[in-house]
Amino acid sequence: MLLEGSCFRLAEAGPFRVGRKAMAVNLSDIAAMAGRPIAAFVSLGLPRSNGREIAEALYQGMCDVADRFQTAVAGGDTNSWDGGLVVSVTVVGQSSTRGAVLRTGARPGDWLFVSGPLGGSIRGKHLNFTPRINEALRLHEIADLHAMIDISDGLGADLGKLCAESRCGAVVRADDVPISIAAREMGTASASPLDHALGDGEDFELLFAVRPADGERLLATQPIPEITLSNIGVCVESGLWIERATGREPLEPRGYEHELR
Amino acid sequence: MLLEGSCFRLAEAGPFRVGRKAMAVNLSDIAAMAGRPIAAFVSLGLPRSNGREIAEALYQGMCDVADRFQTAVAGGDTNSWDGGLVVSVTVVGQSSTRGAVLRTGARPGDWLFVSGPLGGSIRGKHLNFTPRINEALRLHEIADLHAMIDISDGLGADLGKLCAESRCGAVVRADDVPISIAAREMGTASASPLDHALGDGEDFELLFAVRPADGERLLATQPIPEITLSNIGVCVESGLWIERATGREPLEPRGYEHELR
Repeated sequence: MLLEGSCFRLAEAGPFRVGRKAMAVNLSDIAAMAGRPIAAFVSLGLPRSNGREIAEALYQGMCDVADRFQTAVAGGDTNSWDGGLVVSVTVVGQSSTRGAVLRTGARPGDWLFVSGPLGGSIRGKHLNFTPRINEALRLHEIADLHAMIDISDGLGADLGKLCAESRCGAVVRADDVPISIAAREMGTASASPLDHALGDGEDFELLFAVRPADGERLLATQPIPEITLSNIGVCVESGLWIERATGREPLEPRGYEHELR
Repeated sequence: MLLEGSCFRLAEAGPFRVGRKAMAVNLSDIAAMAGRPIAAFVSLGLPRSNGREIAEALYQGMCDVADRFQTAVAGGDTNSWDGGLVVSVTVVGQSSTRGAVLRTGARPGDWLFVSGPLGGSIRGKHLNFTPRINEALRLHEIADLHAMIDISDGLGADLGKLCAESRCGAVVRADDVPISIAAREMGTASASPLDHALGDGEDFELLFAVRPADGERLLATQPIPEITLSNIGVCVESGLWIERATGREPLEPRGYEHELR
């Protein structure tokens, strides 16, 4: 659910890109389980002025990304009200014959991978990323994915969730985290490019765990032309750690926190 | 999607009943196709103050009705923002072995039925109705349902939709429309009890079309103990009509109009 003023500014992003993002974040959740999306259900709370115009642009944006993944906008609900724009999308999908990949199967010793450079998404990627549907399906065919998640809240926070559900820990090697150009540009004395890569979120890249033999093979062959797989660390018995030249420190599971007072 | 201030007043209804209604209206949509609900996905936009308390009461209300129909709250999304409370529910279901009942199959000559008294829902029923899941499944077993819809916008409006999708018309016999006690109490010189029954909406009763032989049998046997089936009219070639003692007049497809400026 995307909420005006909290998740986006309508005047800045425009309704096309809001619709595109609302659909894409849901498709990314399907990708995180290596599923194939089938249909989307869309509920809208539209402002009373320009409601129809906004709805049409939202729909265009949704179709822009849904069509690419053969996902039908199959139903929903349209309302207008005195509040801000609200866009809620539910996507249903199907697991492949190999089953859905959950967050629960990582084990100590597994290698951790991400599917692309991280950080600085706010500079533009958060509005026009491509959900990793096809890449996840391909990975699921060629490797035994023990656990997977998409990075929406930030590498630190989402790795924390994956480890919590798998009842294990992880060590991230600072030098091996791929850092986006945007994160490099945004780096300051108080927040380094690596901090951005660990904490910004909305990267919508895949984070997954495989046994070392699969990991070595993926790293050596880079079997998916669209992306570069980076081995960022390993799973351990417990704790979340980051390994720098200066030693191992606790990795704060930072990132976007869904506040609830 | 239920929106505070537009679909409900939180202070009046309270979050438990808002949650219950948000789930029940979705289950009623599954009932309208004679489906069996399976799982619900719930997205919330919560106000920043008392967000957790409201979320917990909403969830209790949702489970109050979902549990009764073996429907799991299987996922969703929780946000807080500066706007009013937003509750969006998507329910997925399964059609029975006889298939889903659509709105498209009514034919001239079919008898039209409703599953209960109509009108005056605002007096309370709209917040605590029971979705006609079981009744619809039973009807689907014992009769050949040509077309069905649940009455959410009002008998006039929803009959209009059913007829439009079936490319036929209908005549409603004024004296045969079952009128709720609430609608009788609300009747005035400017809006009769029948007007309320035709136009109030949120009755969440079933409206369906069957061939005359099925209709006669349903009427004679009243096979579902929980409800009284009323034969309110017949399908015709075209037009929407209401037949009163004084003659046949056009039936305005009144009811709740989803405004969109």
